[in-house]
Amino acid sequence: MKQTLIIGASGQIGKKFTQLMLDNDQHVVALVRDKSKLSDIHNDKLTIVEEDLNKDFGHAFKDCENVVFAAGSGGHTGADKTILIDLWAACRAANYAKNHDVKHFTMVSSIGAGDPSEGPENMHPYLVAKHMADEHLMNSGLHYSIIRPGSLTNDTGKGKFTNQRPEQKEQATITRDDVAKALLFAVTNPPKKSAITEIFNGSKNIDEVLPS
Amino acid sequence: MKQTLIIGASGQIGKKFTQLMLDNDQHVVALVRDKSKLSDIHNDKLTIVEEDLNKDFGHAFKDCENVVFAAGSGGHTGADKTILIDLWAACRAANYAKNHDVKHFTMVSSIGAGDPSEGPENMHPYLVAKHMADEHLMNSGLHYSIIRPGSLTNDTGKGKFTNQRPEQKEQATITRDDVAKALLFAVTNPPKKSAITEIFNGSKNIDEVLPS
Repeated sequence: MKQTLIIGASGQIGKKFTQLMLDNDQHVVALVRDKSKLSDIHNDKLTIVEEDLNKDFGHAFKDCENVVFAAGSGGHTGADKTILIDLWAACRAANYAKNHDVKHFTMVSSIGAGDPSEGPENMHPYLVAKHMADEHLMNSGLHYSIIRPGSLTNDTGKGKFTNQRPEQKEQATITRDDVAKALLFAVTNPPKKSAITEIFNGSKNIDEVLPS
Repeated sequence: MKQTLIIGASGQIGKKFTQLMLDNDQHVVALVRDKSKLSDIHNDKLTIVEEDLNKDFGHAFKDCENVVFAAGSGGHTGADKTILIDLWAACRAANYAKNHDVKHFTMVSSIGAGDPSEGPENMHPYLVAKHMADEHLMNSGLHYSIIRPGSLTNDTGKGKFTNQRPEQKEQATITRDDVAKALLFAVTNPPKKSAITEIFNGSKNIDEVLPS
């Protein structure tokens, strides 16, 4: 049975993605700190594992072929949490995945993580954490997809994308609904070669935007 | 002329090390944010470069054969500064060094940086930052020495060392004077193979403790 571990499955993107995976008949292991946050999802393809990402969470990787790291809370938490979750938990997730022979690791990264110093100054600590987590994954030997969404919005998903960064910063956005759709595609259609892709709302279908 | 760039040359270890290098007839480029902090050092082998480590500091690497990263302020600053200086400035220093064909890079790291999760909880963010900076250097292709001192003290230097971590945590200490001496040795006697060494005060001479 092919299972996907979703780390941070009760987060804003994580929960949408978890629901979408289940709607598409995918078996999911949802790693969350508080399982009550998923109490409204009832599905026999869902296994919930409750664990703190600051503790050992290697046991959650058992029998999972795919891993998606969707934990973290954007650029607005304290920098200590940024280091411990966005950076360190992500690195440890890659290490656990490597030890469990995971076939494909999808990282929810961020626009600007490629070159943190170019981002807005108040975002630097967050972007550095994401950059270093991505770098660790890239050096891990794992087969990976790094997805770098633009600024996230809560608008209703459009189902249309681009991987070309819009020139106007205000247009470099994507709905959380659509990030979840992109993750579904990345997990169910892993690219032949590991890849890093920035994604935004645009006018194309997802299979034209993510590498195959 | 063989020059050594000291990044963070006005810090608690950095300034002792800078003075020691000059006392040993070494040419030093001292990178500091505020040059007045070195105004009491007068030596024609000293060149001071004033720059903020959050800005581009690549110009300081010109004509430097050795680099020592001694910036940072331990585990007691805010976590945002930990990310920006202890981690990001260190990574960028390694990148600049690589671009300038630096022959040997010495990183002042920390006991516990090898396995951050094993350290005291309040130190985790700092130790993760040091761990990831060390990892970046190790993957850089540079020839390096990573020095991981025990808990730092301001006692007078003893000139005696060990690289065996004492069992009692209270004994896993080293004076800042002696870290400066160890750095002098590392820079003037770079090891054949890149190396990572924990150092503490002990009973041996430095040439018995650092690899040759």
